[in-house]
Amino acid sequence: MALYPKKVYLNGTIVDRENAQISVFDRGFIFGDGIYEVMVQINGRFFYEAVHLARLDACLKKINIEFEVERLKNAIPKLLEASELTDKDCLLYIQVTRGVAPRQHSFPKNIEPTVMMYAQAKKLPDINTVNASVLTLKDFRWSRCDIKMTSLLGNVMANEQAMQNDRYEALLVRNGIITEASHCNVFFVKDKVVYTHPANEFILDGITRQIVLEICRALNLEVREEGIPLNRISEMDEAFLTGTSTQIASIRQIDDHYFYDGSNIGELTKKLQSEFFKLKNLNDQEFNRH
Amino acid sequence: MALYPKKVYLNGTIVDRENAQISVFDRGFIFGDGIYEVMVQINGRFFYEAVHLARLDACLKKINIEFEVERLKNAIPKLLEASELTDKDCLLYIQVTRGVAPRQHSFPKNIEPTVMMYAQAKKLPDINTVNASVLTLKDFRWSRCDIKMTSLLGNVMANEQAMQNDRYEALLVRNGIITEASHCNVFFVKDKVVYTHPANEFILDGITRQIVLEICRALNLEVREEGIPLNRISEMDEAFLTGTSTQIASIRQIDDHYFYDGSNIGELTKKLQSEFFKLKNLNDQEFNRH
Repeated sequence: MALYPKKVYLNGTIVDRENAQISVFDRGFIFGDGIYEVMVQINGRFFYEAVHLARLDACLKKINIEFEVERLKNAIPKLLEASELTDKDCLLYIQVTRGVAPRQHSFPKNIEPTVMMYAQAKKLPDINTVNASVLTLKDFRWSRCDIKMTSLLGNVMANEQAMQNDRYEALLVRNGIITEASHCNVFFVKDKVVYTHPANEFILDGITRQIVLEICRALNLEVREEGIPLNRISEMDEAFLTGTSTQIASIRQIDDHYFYDGSNIGELTKKLQSEFFKLKNLNDQEFNRH
Repeated sequence: MALYPKKVYLNGTIVDRENAQISVFDRGFIFGDGIYEVMVQINGRFFYEAVHLARLDACLKKINIEFEVERLKNAIPKLLEASELTDKDCLLYIQVTRGVAPRQHSFPKNIEPTVMMYAQAKKLPDINTVNASVLTLKDFRWSRCDIKMTSLLGNVMANEQAMQNDRYEALLVRNGIITEASHCNVFFVKDKVVYTHPANEFILDGITRQIVLEICRALNLEVREEGIPLNRISEMDEAFLTGTSTQIASIRQIDDHYFYDGSNIGELTKKLQSEFFKLKNLNDQEFNRH
């Protein structure tokens, strides 16, 4: 069960969780008018921090929220210290909304964005041992899924359906093609070729997705950024999910189709998991090349 | 320019606007996980109040937020009194979110919904004299537009594009068909037949839309609930927008196509505006039949 963090960074100040309050006129509350980001600290450094912050910056620009992401770089260590998580394995959640204004749809002028962050202890497993059963649902979300926004009701409803059915995730199907899951990307393997949906407006281009593609290229694996039709999943050899907290999680079952017997995991999924694990444990010098 | 209300109803208490604060862990803020409703008081009573509250109830049920809308019926008069708006022409905004919980997508158990309302003086014109120039945009919103949710970034972005281009509204086009506008419904008239998009998952079934359809039937006008393709707007005789604050607003121009010269308004649009005006001014006995 999810727990609250103890401390929250809110607009330049670090407060106890109970005191972390915003105006009901924050456009994050009224309109879901905000962008968020999640990253994890592993072995004392945020994994692919620069890439996460660059995505935050890019998404804010896509919806014209003016905010210098650079400003977070001083604030994050202070939040970690107040949270007693300096150098500890943890998750950092960042949310930036357009700010507080009287309600009207169009963007208000000259207001300050609202910035909220919190950190929570989170020790990711070396390798995610989940072998997931997932279901499929119609992808009824908007067609700007490339924007990591807080208007997340579609994702919330899809995820709830998965939980109601005791499934780990919900794969989303748009026009017959599997796009991604409620908060993960999806990969397939067939005849040693790795498939994932292209990073267009129908998916969020996950950082772990990007890392897995990097690993595939380093391993000289053939990669095709193509969406897999729902009616062809039974032809696939392997399937897995990727995400910042999920890392790489094998998929054992989609709807009524089983990829594996028992706890088996596909060879290529295992290989990618082990390469991903190595990447997390590079020393700083090696890591900085990435 | 939009102004703040003085008072806010928040979870059973009426507070000054400056003190109307919620937790950053409210799912309305984190996930846009909420439903809203707007209605207007005219001549001392909320126009179609029962229909608005029934829609609020229906939308809450669609996303499984458990809340007795009935409870608002005592709270609304208190809010109006505190706002010095009892019996005055005003707008009432209602928002109900799933409540406050540690962040995880699926629905938390046993939490109280957050209820926020405010009222603001608003005198609607007898008849909306706007003759709107609008633009068209791709409808990139989700495909559950029947849910009046607060995950509104898509609508916000569309409306902002209209404002940036000095247009009154943005008509949204899905698969070549005009669905609705960023916060209004859209109607067309051709050869005395009234057209509007069917109330399916691609539009919000506006209360004013429903009233206009009622009026058309009372006038024995032929109504077809069919979406009009963008490439057929030049064949149409008239076009108008409907909405709770918009009432019925003539459309003079869509993109580069003009329906009228100067300030002309179509005959049927004018007729519907005048019938709508009469409806607002029915005495209580007549009104209760509606």
